[in-house]
Amino acid sequence: MTSLRVAMIGYGFMGAAHSQGWRTAHRVFDLPAEPEMAVLVGRNAAAVDQAARKWGWAESATDWRKVVARDDIDVVDIVTPGDSHAEIAIAALEAGKHVLCEKPLANTVEEAEAMAAAAERAAARGIRAMVGFTYRRVPAVTFMRNLIAEGAVGTINQVRASYRQDWLVDPDMPLAWRLQKEHAGSGALGDIGAHAIDLAQFVTGQNLAKVSGVVDTIVKERPLQGSGSGLSGTAATGYGQVTVDDIAIFTGRFESGALGSFEASRFATGRKNALAIEVSGDKGALAFDLEDLNSVHFYDRTAPADRQGFRKILATEPQHPYVAAWWPAGHMLGYEHGFSHQVKDLVEGIVQGNDPHPTFADGLRVQRVLEAVERSSANDSAWAPVAVDVPVQAG
Amino acid sequence: MTSLRVAMIGYGFMGAAHSQGWRTAHRVFDLPAEPEMAVLVGRNAAAVDQAARKWGWAESATDWRKVVARDDIDVVDIVTPGDSHAEIAIAALEAGKHVLCEKPLANTVEEAEAMAAAAERAAARGIRAMVGFTYRRVPAVTFMRNLIAEGAVGTINQVRASYRQDWLVDPDMPLAWRLQKEHAGSGALGDIGAHAIDLAQFVTGQNLAKVSGVVDTIVKERPLQGSGSGLSGTAATGYGQVTVDDIAIFTGRFESGALGSFEASRFATGRKNALAIEVSGDKGALAFDLEDLNSVHFYDRTAPADRQGFRKILATEPQHPYVAAWWPAGHMLGYEHGFSHQVKDLVEGIVQGNDPHPTFADGLRVQRVLEAVERSSANDSAWAPVAVDVPVQAG
Amino acid sequence: MTSLRVAMIGYGFMGAAHSQGWRTAHRVFDLPAEPEMAVLVGRNAAAVDQAARKWGWAESATDWRKVVARDDIDVVDIVTPGDSHAEIAIAALEAGKHVLCEKPLANTVEEAEAMAAAAERAAARGIRAMVGFTYRRVPAVTFMRNLIAEGAVGTINQVRASYRQDWLVDPDMPLAWRLQKEHAGSGALGDIGAHAIDLAQFVTGQNLAKVSGVVDTIVKERPLQGSGSGLSGTAATGYGQVTVDDIAIFTGRFESGALGSFEASRFATGRKNALAIEVSGDKGALAFDLEDLNSVHFYDRTAPADRQGFRKILATEPQHPYVAAWWPAGHMLGYEHGFSHQVKDLVEGIVQGNDPHPTFADGLRVQRVLEAVERSSANDSAWAPVAVDVPVQAG
Amino acid sequence: MTSLRVAMIGYGFMGAAHSQGWRTAHRVFDLPAEPEMAVLVGRNAAAVDQAARKWGWAESATDWRKVVARDDIDVVDIVTPGDSHAEIAIAALEAGKHVLCEKPLANTVEEAEAMAAAAERAAARGIRAMVGFTYRRVPAVTFMRNLIAEGAVGTINQVRASYRQDWLVDPDMPLAWRLQKEHAGSGALGDIGAHAIDLAQFVTGQNLAKVSGVVDTIVKERPLQGSGSGLSGTAATGYGQVTVDDIAIFTGRFESGALGSFEASRFATGRKNALAIEVSGDKGALAFDLEDLNSVHFYDRTAPADRQGFRKILATEPQHPYVAAWWPAGHMLGYEHGFSHQVKDLVEGIVQGNDPHPTFADGLRVQRVLEAVERSSANDSAWAPVAVDVPVQAG
Repeated sequence: MTSLRVAMIGYGFMGAAHSQGWRTAHRVFDLPAEPEMAVLVGRNAAAVDQAARKWGWAESATDWRKVVARDDIDVVDIVTPGDSHAEIAIAALEAGKHVLCEKPLANTVEEAEAMAAAAERAAARGIRAMVGFTYRRVPAVTFMRNLIAEGAVGTINQVRASYRQDWLVDPDMPLAWRLQKEHAGSGALGDIGAHAIDLAQFVTGQNLAKVSGVVDTIVKERPLQGSGSGLSGTAATGYGQVTVDDIAIFTGRFESGALGSFEASRFATGRKNALAIEVSGDKGALAFDLEDLNSVHFYDRTAPADRQGFRKILATEPQHPYVAAWWPAGHMLGYEHGFSHQVKDLVEGIVQGNDPHPTFADGLRVQRVLEAVERSSANDSAWAPVAVDVPVQAG
Repeated sequence: MTSLRVAMIGYGFMGAAHSQGWRTAHRVFDLPAEPEMAVLVGRNAAAVDQAARKWGWAESATDWRKVVARDDIDVVDIVTPGDSHAEIAIAALEAGKHVLCEKPLANTVEEAEAMAAAAERAAARGIRAMVGFTYRRVPAVTFMRNLIAEGAVGTINQVRASYRQDWLVDPDMPLAWRLQKEHAGSGALGDIGAHAIDLAQFVTGQNLAKVSGVVDTIVKERPLQGSGSGLSGTAATGYGQVTVDDIAIFTGRFESGALGSFEASRFATGRKNALAIEVSGDKGALAFDLEDLNSVHFYDRTAPADRQGFRKILATEPQHPYVAAWWPAGHMLGYEHGFSHQVKDLVEGIVQGNDPHPTFADGLRVQRVLEAVERSSANDSAWAPVAVDVPVQAG
Repeated sequence: MTSLRVAMIGYGFMGAAHSQGWRTAHRVFDLPAEPEMAVLVGRNAAAVDQAARKWGWAESATDWRKVVARDDIDVVDIVTPGDSHAEIAIAALEAGKHVLCEKPLANTVEEAEAMAAAAERAAARGIRAMVGFTYRRVPAVTFMRNLIAEGAVGTINQVRASYRQDWLVDPDMPLAWRLQKEHAGSGALGDIGAHAIDLAQFVTGQNLAKVSGVVDTIVKERPLQGSGSGLSGTAATGYGQVTVDDIAIFTGRFESGALGSFEASRFATGRKNALAIEVSGDKGALAFDLEDLNSVHFYDRTAPADRQGFRKILATEPQHPYVAAWWPAGHMLGYEHGFSHQVKDLVEGIVQGNDPHPTFADGLRVQRVLEAVERSSANDSAWAPVAVDVPVQAG
Repeated sequence: MTSLRVAMIGYGFMGAAHSQGWRTAHRVFDLPAEPEMAVLVGRNAAAVDQAARKWGWAESATDWRKVVARDDIDVVDIVTPGDSHAEIAIAALEAGKHVLCEKPLANTVEEAEAMAAAAERAAARGIRAMVGFTYRRVPAVTFMRNLIAEGAVGTINQVRASYRQDWLVDPDMPLAWRLQKEHAGSGALGDIGAHAIDLAQFVTGQNLAKVSGVVDTIVKERPLQGSGSGLSGTAATGYGQVTVDDIAIFTGRFESGALGSFEASRFATGRKNALAIEVSGDKGALAFDLEDLNSVHFYDRTAPADRQGFRKILATEPQHPYVAAWWPAGHMLGYEHGFSHQVKDLVEGIVQGNDPHPTFADGLRVQRVLEAVERSSANDSAWAPVAVDVPVQAG
């Protein structure tokens, strides 16, 4: 069997999750090529070396440009902060490497457009590019998409999506780089709202055409952590400004005309990782919540009137997507399984020459929605069209 | 429209609930006769008079024998403690009054047998007798029974029923008459276990043939409440013996051969009124919990393998039993609605000359199961057949 | 005991619910005055007479003006469609009658302002006026409000409220008067969105200052029902225009600065009566859903980090509001209990000379929010301030 | 860092799960020694070689005796069917290998006793033995145990445990070796009931002293699968006898005197992998269900009366057992994480010289309970004491 040699750039929390995917996928699924965890790349030599040993990467390196240029690397996996995605991804694609890029695709629409264009050029040469919205590959989510595509909910009348966490509720939580715009690009909207947008567009198969909304910062100042904080324009002590949003609430109009309500919040007390979506159609409805990720709730309006109700389907049967390769029926999967599924689909796409979704075009589409929400918020929440002027490949 | 003049004997908590039923049923349903709340009977003249005014009974009285003999009374409703049920009910039936008797039918099998025999004799003269297992008339429960009768779960393989409360968890809760056998007859088994038994037999349409189980008293001594406690054989202060069970766990074999597991407990911390039942068959399953009494959960094994799941049916649609007469779809009903439904069905039975279930024979059947559980418990939990020697009318 | 003689104007579904409240409240609670169901008023003499007999009103009448002028009437209860509320309520208040007016207070802000002004004048003469947002009196809701007032969630950071039903999903459901603006005034927004707004303002104790939102009509044409439909400007057959909204989604800014997301929909497939609210603060969170109306979910951030979680409190203990007068702990209440609680609080307010909430000023406040949502929707969803120019009494 | 070379005997479904544990544990946790997946052993050379490649074992072998004798093997992991556990485990322990043995410890009490004795002898030489009840290491379960040990539920009054699946509901499911006693030893009782027993004893810290129960076979004959079935005493076609139980229901008395109700069923329609337990004490209660394995429900009776309720704690915070090494707060874990935790604790035990629970003595204890249930069932469900005559090490 052929192998695919992978270099991963970045080694934060997402690096651990991606490593788990690279390590596990071919142990569970029958893949047409076996991924090899070849090189882990980071700026701090000692730290990246330690991470490489820990996670099982064969070597470590500090200069991503050199690694991307190596002949023995087939795939580049990018898990760095968003502001470096464009440069690395474009370089890798141009060097003929298949690319997996963690979401969000980039911090700006401009970067995302350049990346999507690079991916389109690369595709012409048989090079694949994929963005890491892994929640698409939770079996319950993929199953939900399939049900909708099969017509189980009929014509979609409305969508309700939200991603709610609560880790910023404590006002004494210190100011971190993730709370400053120049470093993080965006707050709740870009970090978790992006997932809600992608999920809504993915499961419905419909794109958002325009949005009206508001982004807000609930706690506007937070304590500094001392001299080591590395924050811009702040003293080492006292309080600093939070310059990204804590919460975003917006309404979207899909191209079909259906309305969707959206919320992203880091202040939803008690909600830890609640990415929830409900799709309501004229034949039925489907609902999902990431805090109960093995289930999907299905309401079938075609059942007899007295027998209708939301049924909780445990998406852990062999008939459900990805499940047969794992454990017997009824055995729960967790967060990181999506990363193995992502590897599986990427490897299959590479070998078979198909584009695995979500493509960079899909990532750009999410980026444009995020930008439109911010534009609407800055314009008294008036409706803002989602820019669609640059044609991109469909995912 | 004709009217039915009702006398109610007893005025404790169940008197309040029955009054609500008598007061409400004809305001909601179209009944063939209108109940009149004629006389409330109790031993304490002042107290019963106050209750009569409060609840809307036209007069009060202290001697139930005189009331039962009155020509202007059509129905006698018995809500006294269980040890007086037999005497009152038999006298009322012999006086030609229709009888509604609160559960349990009696404190002993012997009394229950005499009552069932009296009901059988009365039925020959067109007199109706009904026992108050009102949970049968929660719409979700009646609907569950109907679904099973229609074959929605197929052949029943097993049943799981329990009634769990927690009001005795506090060991400092005083000894009350309900915790002494000479007054209460039984503890958790007879008080709430009886409901679980009746519910299981009702929804499945199958009777229990034998049982194996144990009854136990978790807190064996409780503080006395002082001289006013009126308890037998105890000093006014200090501690007294709890002489009824706190918990009963038993397994039943239905006549069909299916097994059922049963539990009644007053020590299930955090469970307030959790009468739960699950019926598992080869085509599906149904589950109900009184703490969420407007719902029934239905699992349909005939659905496609990837679309199976317990669906939560809100039994609040006009298509569900009793519901159309109440509020619009989706408006929740509560505990006491069963008492209005009981009045409705009793009144219709009286006017139409049909026996409304549950009959005294049904009540006797439950009593015999209770007795068999106690017999098994006293015999090292060996299986005890449910006595069936006295033939009784079917409900 | 003194009595209060009540006349009720209107006899639709809400008339049945109000009758249940008038009939029941003094049978359960100890009221300082006993309501008498004196007169039921409607335009169709035969129909209103039948309803009066059914529900237990002593007489019926066809001319509300005469009834409102009668000396023997103390309370006027208005359950007619919204376009007649103002005229009747103002006349009744001016005639010195206490008034209970079903929600929405009126179909327009102007009418509501006139009513609030009339109520303020009447209050000076000891006359009470109350608007029927009964969901405030679901015990779990009142308890939720009390918890918030006690500081259980701390400073409120955000609110999430929605009222979702699905009775319009079927596109073949005929056009009814409720779907035409000239008759109904508003659609989902005014009918059920009003409840979500009132609930949010009530439980948080905070008013909305401005809103940004959209109202939409998903199914724009519906079949006519034939010549008997009585609809304006439509032929007796074919299709007619739906001129009210099916769905409303909006964001509100409370006076405190906190954001709230709101939705009202009649197209939320599978949601029957889902009035849901979640309040998130820096010390905790509270959530409620009318489809499970005996529960409130409480998250306490002050608990140890590993013991935090949403706890499902069954608001059926004697310590919870209104509950002690009903059944033992753990016995579920239903939709109509709020109507008994409403009568209780109104009667107590009348006798004690206090204004029971929600006042007409509270009703006006909701009306102004509804109007602002429509204004925002018509103005490209730009933020619209909630008018506050007419000072009104606080509820 | 030192390494531990592991040989695994057996390569069925449990082999896949154990491999995932051996492959993952040191990638997530900081272990004092690194496991090496050295040899996979099975009888079919080609098949075991394929499995070894798939799962990442360095070599494969067919003779477990030779492998157990190898000097370069430190740990023997046994995932064969139960009837071979004793021979392999005892040989491995005597050869000085640390042993991890999948549950049930053995098919008979006699074998289990011999294994426990061997483990005790081995312990004296610093050799560790552990049995694979991995559900103990679901973080929510470990946390539940800790809460109970800390007194969160106070004195335990009762326990309710069940393990329900539904894969035998279809009567046309063929007869497999797992349904014949000579091969499988036991049915639902030994396979899944064992988990319920271990869980109950583990979280409460109490052992069962005696039991009363029944085992039953609901579908007594099943179709044969043809000549390849390899079943004993049956023709290749037609129907064969099911000789193990489908369902077991029993009551247990803990040494403390508390009662527990138990059920194991493969006929609980709609329940896929529902290992559920509820522990009720005088200070609180705790409940867990494997179908929602990231949550534990805690009821705190010491909270104010109106604020009590079951709180759903997501055991996915860094403060919860095992969680900090995985993903950020709120990210769900799945079934196989317990196998990584098992490896972690075994490796730490080996290096630190401590016995990791569950010991072979714990496994023997479960075996004795299983045997007592069967003895009771055969004796008209009379109470059967759990044999305790052979003293064994405590786990």
